[in-house]
Amino acid sequence: MAGKEKQPKIITDKNQMRTWTRGMRSQGKTIALVPTMGFLHDGHLSLIQEAHKHSQLVVVSIYVNPSQFAPSEDLSTYPSDFEGDIRKLMAVPGGVDAVFHPHNLYDYGVESARVCAGNAGGYGEMPAVSCLEESGSGHETWVRVERLEKGMCGRSRPVFFRGVATIVAKLFNIVEPDVAVFGKKDYQQWRIIRRMVRDLDFSINIVGSEIVRDADGLAMSSRNVRLSPEERQKALSINRSLSKAKSAAESGELNCKRLKNLVFDEVREAGGELDYVEIVEQENLEVVEEIKSPVVILIATWFGKVRLIDNMEINI
Amino acid sequence: MAGKEKQPKIITDKNQMRTWTRGMRSQGKTIALVPTMGFLHDGHLSLIQEAHKHSQLVVVSIYVNPSQFAPSEDLSTYPSDFEGDIRKLMAVPGGVDAVFHPHNLYDYGVESARVCAGNAGGYGEMPAVSCLEESGSGHETWVRVERLEKGMCGRSRPVFFRGVATIVAKLFNIVEPDVAVFGKKDYQQWRIIRRMVRDLDFSINIVGSEIVRDADGLAMSSRNVRLSPEERQKALSINRSLSKAKSAAESGELNCKRLKNLVFDEVREAGGELDYVEIVEQENLEVVEEIKSPVVILIATWFGKVRLIDNMEINI
Repeated sequence: MAGKEKQPKIITDKNQMRTWTRGMRSQGKTIALVPTMGFLHDGHLSLIQEAHKHSQLVVVSIYVNPSQFAPSEDLSTYPSDFEGDIRKLMAVPGGVDAVFHPHNLYDYGVESARVCAGNAGGYGEMPAVSCLEESGSGHETWVRVERLEKGMCGRSRPVFFRGVATIVAKLFNIVEPDVAVFGKKDYQQWRIIRRMVRDLDFSINIVGSEIVRDADGLAMSSRNVRLSPEERQKALSINRSLSKAKSAAESGELNCKRLKNLVFDEVREAGGELDYVEIVEQENLEVVEEIKSPVVILIATWFGKVRLIDNMEINI
Repeated sequence: MAGKEKQPKIITDKNQMRTWTRGMRSQGKTIALVPTMGFLHDGHLSLIQEAHKHSQLVVVSIYVNPSQFAPSEDLSTYPSDFEGDIRKLMAVPGGVDAVFHPHNLYDYGVESARVCAGNAGGYGEMPAVSCLEESGSGHETWVRVERLEKGMCGRSRPVFFRGVATIVAKLFNIVEPDVAVFGKKDYQQWRIIRRMVRDLDFSINIVGSEIVRDADGLAMSSRNVRLSPEERQKALSINRSLSKAKSAAESGELNCKRLKNLVFDEVREAGGELDYVEIVEQENLEVVEEIKSPVVILIATWFGKVRLIDNMEINI
């Protein structure tokens, strides 16, 4: 530890952030952005190591984006530990060069951008659809990737991908990176961001980074800390069942209904309350009935009060 | 004419466009973008002169954007004259430095991006909502400014502002200008672009340029050429009635219903088929019943087969 660790520059103002990037770029540096909501774990740190492969400088953003949460969701209890995050970032090989940690990216100085706390309902006449109030002169511009956002997590979390695509577009315009790294654990999100970048002509290379799992196989997530030891044990059925389905497919079982049932049965038996299990094309996320080309099997399931997602690519 | 005129660099490839801007910026130059759909008239040329006030270099884009037309609208008959446009641009004081004239900004090389010709209906199962086909791996990302796009032209042209905001976001990401100039003749569009830039944190200064009118008072528009001499004569009622309403307001008539009726009556009497007359707040475009602060009176009306829009700010 000690002297060799790099202290990242901490930037909270969006104009300062852009000035920093532009200054670095004028010196010929390339910049990668790793967007996060903080409470960093080894999964995030692997994104940073991936980022180092693609650019000279790495910026990590830490911002819990209210617009991707519905009022019924867990914005108010979303875990955070900024000081711990900075310590972890300093310990990553190569460190990070800047941390962008804004207070509120929806405050335009015209009126205070209100964010709902906990399970609050709507403000005024309109029922809130996200934890960001939309009225008067407040934020009202949304980026939607209309087909890719529809199924799976988009069905159970109707404002989620709208909020994600919009905040990522904002971060891209503020940080102006050359490269941005996203985890393939959030597979649908990763595909949505890639499509958005293509369709809106952002000049940013989107890199997908592989899922990082704990030794027991559970995919890393900030939400895992909320699992009781028993729930965690049960949640291992997710990775186990995905691996089984993958093996079965590789052994010639190409019928998606039967493959999905393998996963369903194993996770249900372990006590998981399934949101969805889906087998889809890797790029367009179109539902597949019989595997003929590379696909990905995706799952979302509740264990207790925690919703977990995971996926596995099957390259046949 | 002759030797003193500047020949603009004509760029059709989006990557070449971005490379040009970045090269100029690395030399310390500032760049303004004037987005147009071509068939330039003095109104456009005034935007270029405005652009020269705000930057060292001026890029004009000429691109008829299919996604802002509905299949029932006039995409296939939209006038164009690229060579004439270039001659006009060369004659503007200060000229322009580059013309961005892409063939198809929705072709991503994955499948041909089809554009409807004339009054074609939908492709495949989905009815087309715009003249851009949306299916398979085609374009599917849309930027919407949800409140500002709702009334007025947004009511009569449901895909129009979605198409405009999206193509402007694309052009901003391709050209990467410091400044962009829009005509206040398209008042709702101008406000939508300003809001989009604020909400998505584009680092671009949006300048609104005043309406340019012919000697007879008609606001300049590419569509004016389609008016018969008689229709043109009748269309003068637009500017005349707006001016009357503005004078009346300045003389103390603050009731919007009565002011709108002034415009309605004069335009109808001249044979115009009105789409809307509305008096709204200048920034949020919220409908006003009694003028208490700066407003704008906006009109859209048909004369024959030509839909014309116009507006006038009333600063009380």
